[in-house]
Amino acid sequence: MSLIGRDLISIHDLSREEILEVLELGKRMHDAEKQGRRNNWGTKLVGMTLASLFYEASTRTRQSFDTAVRELGGKRIGFSGTEGTSVAKGETIRDTVMMYCANHAHAIVMRHPRDGSLQWAADVAHIPVVNGGDGKNEHPTQALLDLLTMYVVRQGKMDQLRVGFGGDLAHGRTVGSLTRALSHFEGVEVHWAAHDIFAMPSHLEHILEAKGVRVVRHDNVRGVLQNVDFYYMTRPQMERMNGTPQEEVLRILAQYRITPALLNGVSARIMHPLPIDSRLREIEPEVAFLPNAFYYLQAEMGIFARKALLHELLVEQGQSDYLPYSGVLPSELVSTNNRLQRAIGQRDKPTGIVHPIENGIVIDHLNGSADVNAILQPETRLRPNGKIHLGAYGKFPDAHGDVKTVYKTDLSELTERELRSIALASPGATINVIREGRVVDKFVYILCGNENCVTHVVEEAVPAKLYAEDGHAHCRYCRKLVEIPGRKVTAEERAAFIASLPTRIEPVVYK
Amino acid sequence: MSLIGRDLISIHDLSREEILEVLELGKRMHDAEKQGRRNNWGTKLVGMTLASLFYEASTRTRQSFDTAVRELGGKRIGFSGTEGTSVAKGETIRDTVMMYCANHAHAIVMRHPRDGSLQWAADVAHIPVVNGGDGKNEHPTQALLDLLTMYVVRQGKMDQLRVGFGGDLAHGRTVGSLTRALSHFEGVEVHWAAHDIFAMPSHLEHILEAKGVRVVRHDNVRGVLQNVDFYYMTRPQMERMNGTPQEEVLRILAQYRITPALLNGVSARIMHPLPIDSRLREIEPEVAFLPNAFYYLQAEMGIFARKALLHELLVEQGQSDYLPYSGVLPSELVSTNNRLQRAIGQRDKPTGIVHPIENGIVIDHLNGSADVNAILQPETRLRPNGKIHLGAYGKFPDAHGDVKTVYKTDLSELTERELRSIALASPGATINVIREGRVVDKFVYILCGNENCVTHVVEEAVPAKLYAEDGHAHCRYCRKLVEIPGRKVTAEERAAFIASLPTRIEPVVYK
Amino acid sequence: MSLIGRDLISIHDLSREEILEVLELGKRMHDAEKQGRRNNWGTKLVGMTLASLFYEASTRTRQSFDTAVRELGGKRIGFSGTEGTSVAKGETIRDTVMMYCANHAHAIVMRHPRDGSLQWAADVAHIPVVNGGDGKNEHPTQALLDLLTMYVVRQGKMDQLRVGFGGDLAHGRTVGSLTRALSHFEGVEVHWAAHDIFAMPSHLEHILEAKGVRVVRHDNVRGVLQNVDFYYMTRPQMERMNGTPQEEVLRILAQYRITPALLNGVSARIMHPLPIDSRLREIEPEVAFLPNAFYYLQAEMGIFARKALLHELLVEQGQSDYLPYSGVLPSELVSTNNRLQRAIGQRDKPTGIVHPIENGIVIDHLNGSADVNAILQPETRLRPNGKIHLGAYGKFPDAHGDVKTVYKTDLSELTERELRSIALASPGATINVIREGRVVDKFVYILCGNENCVTHVVEEAVPAKLYAEDGHAHCRYCRKLVEIPGRKVTAEERAAFIASLPTRIEPVVYK
Repeated sequence: MSLIGRDLISIHDLSREEILEVLELGKRMHDAEKQGRRNNWGTKLVGMTLASLFYEASTRTRQSFDTAVRELGGKRIGFSGTEGTSVAKGETIRDTVMMYCANHAHAIVMRHPRDGSLQWAADVAHIPVVNGGDGKNEHPTQALLDLLTMYVVRQGKMDQLRVGFGGDLAHGRTVGSLTRALSHFEGVEVHWAAHDIFAMPSHLEHILEAKGVRVVRHDNVRGVLQNVDFYYMTRPQMERMNGTPQEEVLRILAQYRITPALLNGVSARIMHPLPIDSRLREIEPEVAFLPNAFYYLQAEMGIFARKALLHELLVEQGQSDYLPYSGVLPSELVSTNNRLQRAIGQRDKPTGIVHPIENGIVIDHLNGSADVNAILQPETRLRPNGKIHLGAYGKFPDAHGDVKTVYKTDLSELTERELRSIALASPGATINVIREGRVVDKFVYILCGNENCVTHVVEEAVPAKLYAEDGHAHCRYCRKLVEIPGRKVTAEERAAFIASLPTRIEPVVYK
Repeated sequence: MSLIGRDLISIHDLSREEILEVLELGKRMHDAEKQGRRNNWGTKLVGMTLASLFYEASTRTRQSFDTAVRELGGKRIGFSGTEGTSVAKGETIRDTVMMYCANHAHAIVMRHPRDGSLQWAADVAHIPVVNGGDGKNEHPTQALLDLLTMYVVRQGKMDQLRVGFGGDLAHGRTVGSLTRALSHFEGVEVHWAAHDIFAMPSHLEHILEAKGVRVVRHDNVRGVLQNVDFYYMTRPQMERMNGTPQEEVLRILAQYRITPALLNGVSARIMHPLPIDSRLREIEPEVAFLPNAFYYLQAEMGIFARKALLHELLVEQGQSDYLPYSGVLPSELVSTNNRLQRAIGQRDKPTGIVHPIENGIVIDHLNGSADVNAILQPETRLRPNGKIHLGAYGKFPDAHGDVKTVYKTDLSELTERELRSIALASPGATINVIREGRVVDKFVYILCGNENCVTHVVEEAVPAKLYAEDGHAHCRYCRKLVEIPGRKVTAEERAAFIASLPTRIEPVVYK
Repeated sequence: MSLIGRDLISIHDLSREEILEVLELGKRMHDAEKQGRRNNWGTKLVGMTLASLFYEASTRTRQSFDTAVRELGGKRIGFSGTEGTSVAKGETIRDTVMMYCANHAHAIVMRHPRDGSLQWAADVAHIPVVNGGDGKNEHPTQALLDLLTMYVVRQGKMDQLRVGFGGDLAHGRTVGSLTRALSHFEGVEVHWAAHDIFAMPSHLEHILEAKGVRVVRHDNVRGVLQNVDFYYMTRPQMERMNGTPQEEVLRILAQYRITPALLNGVSARIMHPLPIDSRLREIEPEVAFLPNAFYYLQAEMGIFARKALLHELLVEQGQSDYLPYSGVLPSELVSTNNRLQRAIGQRDKPTGIVHPIENGIVIDHLNGSADVNAILQPETRLRPNGKIHLGAYGKFPDAHGDVKTVYKTDLSELTERELRSIALASPGATINVIREGRVVDKFVYILCGNENCVTHVVEEAVPAKLYAEDGHAHCRYCRKLVEIPGRKVTAEERAAFIASLPTRIEPVVYK
């Protein structure tokens, strides 16, 4: 078991043993530093460079990785915020990542507003990539540092932990990531109290209970505080509260605020990912003077967690080695696996709707508002004979009497970019490929339904790739469950498609 | 005498001997470099890190500290400008400082737009904090580098210095800081010429003369130039000139501009804190080609001054040592000393105005526009019996026949935050604490009157702390004189309050 | 032959031998790294610092220099973007450069939006200055890395190179710089295909052919691809396309786009300076998966090219030495050489138009709209007798019957700043200096006509300096040809002026 050369995209990619390996090294680094013991970690990354690519603001995570790499003897390059960078000139994630590989980075930590963007960066880069936050998706080193805080305080014991949660359990990723990571251990209890609009999602509760975690909801925060070793306070996601008036939210928050009075006689340690919002005051400033306040020490644990992680990912790779950079992307990245094959039936014969096209593409089951002409722009493209290509819509009553929209063109094939654009405009459309008057291929181009997924940004040219989990398709990049949208797709076609998918996110192999 | 582990908030915190210690080390570093002598300063800060927290733009000061720490072998972390940092998410100065302590910084240099913010940062941090500019308040390393420039030029002799000042003597902090620092030395002369709107404040002149400095005003710049060793030109603070039309200001400036012609036959060295404003041209560009031009060399002195200072603050602390970080703030930081106790008199009996409240708070001598309900929001707070708390205003004729506004609530105590908010809205209000129908405590919550003081930002939760100097109260943070605002406060109450204050800014002790 | 201590402002400043010297070192560094050979380049710049002054956004160039200096063991200081710097306070290029010299930089790399700004920075600095892009003018390290890419691929052979160009050959600087650098070598062929609006300028074609380069225009990209070793794709400068509708430009671009289909059976390597615009897609994303894709490896060549260059400029200077910094600018920088002397003729006698002025200046052949009073502001300036100075316009019919505008003032001389301002407002005006009723000096103040030239920014106070090349005056800073604008200037006066100019850009010598 080794993490050398691995990427870290989600805390769920780490096994119980791998988590414990990082925690144990982090604790050893912590203990050595607090006890002033000699060690030689300070030279482990000499000659190595971490590229820190923060497409979004972050002081804390970025600074913490910076300290980690500095204390291991390495250097940091990169950017924070995209103003004044080539991103403003339309550079893709792919090209930016390759640029930092060309600059001889040995690892990348990146934050990006798009879900799935970190998996894409990891696919492109031949060096380890660590997720510093992809959209609202994952932030695995936050979970690692939270775990390390508990691990250090409890002297390496993770079983029989009792952890309370407060603040906003409904909208942030923190509670889900941390509780699921905790579920690796024995006898874990999760206690919580929150107003219904901030309540723990019931599917999360089910997952945890299925893994043996005892989940207890309390009426009030005091009840939680009296039953836990750690109390984890999270920031309310005010921007997600569209339905509820802000004063109402503030009033609710006030009832769940951590105050010195509430901590009277309580030994639970208060944790918080920081920054605390000084306007919302989810934790009163005066709490910082009590022995319960643990969030500042938790911030320091972020250093040790990231030092341990970078050490695990990089050190045996051979210090100061040049990592051969080929400048060529592996061709497996260009391929997709999202075409749901459909059976070619009787109605797909030349006498059917496709009749007027001898060679070309017919797109069936189109969403009425999808503007395929704007995507394909056939009028700007010349055939070998000098005539422009055809592109036309038709409307037909289908077998059920509904009017359906069909598009036909004599372009002989569609690019991935065009297929993705059509699927974005009209999920579930069926593509029919016509050769010599016959349908020779018929498929639905399945695309992730998450609007914030990086695969939705056509310019990024991220290949649509899926994997199957629990009998469902998932996006390789944002990992969200992908609905199979084709209205006419049969259960058999659907099952065959799911069966054709890989059952995990296979790493891209660089030679 | 040692500066090890000290903060530098104001140049006035340094004694004559301490200033000379820094200057002498700066000069030795300068001489060694200019003469190419071997030295080992380049490794003194190996393993140490300076956190450079610039909440406001600065190239020069920030870059100069950066060079200083680099040339001593240390590293720098931090930020410049708050865009893209956690400050935008409502993070307090306190939490930001703690975050950089958690990142194992060994010292902090910080610039912040609020007066007093640097003293607060120094209180919070367990490591040395150097003021890189707090609002318009202090910028002690500028004064140090100005002094070093003179010290190096005059081969270590500070007595019998003759310094001229020009530009804007009325609005900037430079002239005041530098002249007061010069007043430590013997036989110092200050010469100046400026239009009345830029004239040296008369109270500064009095302070200097009281310390034995000869202050001479001249009719014109030429007169000053002929009588001094150094001529210090400062930037006019155009934004402070609201009363005077801009063209008028420009015309005045033109008369005091330093030009090549003016320097004809003059040996005085021209100093300037830089940057020179290329639009205002307080110094003509052509002056840079004359031997009088000394501002570019002065810029280099900034490196040596800051290297010497960092060396003095840090080096004996033990190189590369881990500074134990507890993550807990000392509880003395939470306490305030600004409650001016008032005598409980005959009229404060239950039969008086407070009668309707058996237990609670009455706020007397309120400013009529102060909205105490908006601060306390009693209607959102429940008593143990489930009823909401009371909050009501009353208006009463007082002993003088004036109408006074009183507020009463059955909340049993007010938090520091609430008291501060009330004092901001109504300085000088008297707080009466009622228990079983009797006034048991009566005080005025005294707050610094400087609107730009960091203690006015309620979210920052800086405790209101005062010290006494020359028989007056001063704010611990911005050091401005604090008026005692209570209208009814007696001379005895006032005197007793002043007597209760510490007579200097006591450092916060970290164990 | 040595590049030690030199500036690099234009690729044309390097001879064939100097280029080959840099390329050979770059190739050795590249080969050593790719083959894992031991070397000691990693310590060559220990103790040295590169100031990286990017007035304009750049990730790639800035990052590449950063990596280069880091891998040579040196440090980097500086800024990227002028927000939050002293530039916003009106600081000049000159003062900024001096500030970084004061911060003990050993070399400067700078990018600035003004043409000629880099020559000015090089004049001011006593250390090597490398042009990272001045306006649309020069970007010599891009040309160096392009050459190194070819040099490495062809194992050190530069002769008989066949290079194709595509994209925008009309507006960018890349094609011109690279082809002219290639013209140093034997048997070079340039092939290109582009729409007329993006066509190679014919004067460039003439220059190349005069130097023995074979230039071939093809009908289409495929024709070029089949005839070259490298195909260089450039970004279209959309912002220069004002005359052509954007859809039209996009349609044209689509015909010249590099696609996988186009590369079928082609061995040419595709180069691109990066970033590729993901919206315009001058190269389709799928090309990155083909062996022809060479732009990512070209990005890595930027590291080796810049490492080699910095090594050549700095290493023999003596590692870790302090470069003595005087803080004084050489006085030769203040002098100009742009006064075209005119003969004082019969009509310039006191009985002429200048009659009313006994002593002063008369400005003749003024552009009617030039507001000289606004420049000189005589009404704000006092004569020794306390009266204000005179400034008045006159209109006279000239010998041809045209009305000409003349300005007269009793100011006895004009500053360089005033002369430059007048020449900006009225190019070609003749300045007449009157003493005791006689014209004693008569000249035209010649100024560069390039509106984006740094000499046009009056606040920067860049001296107007010219040199002569091919019988024409050129601006020392932006190197653009300078038209001699005086309407009345005779051919003899013009020729004498050109003859008086230096015939090359003489370096500024620092003692």
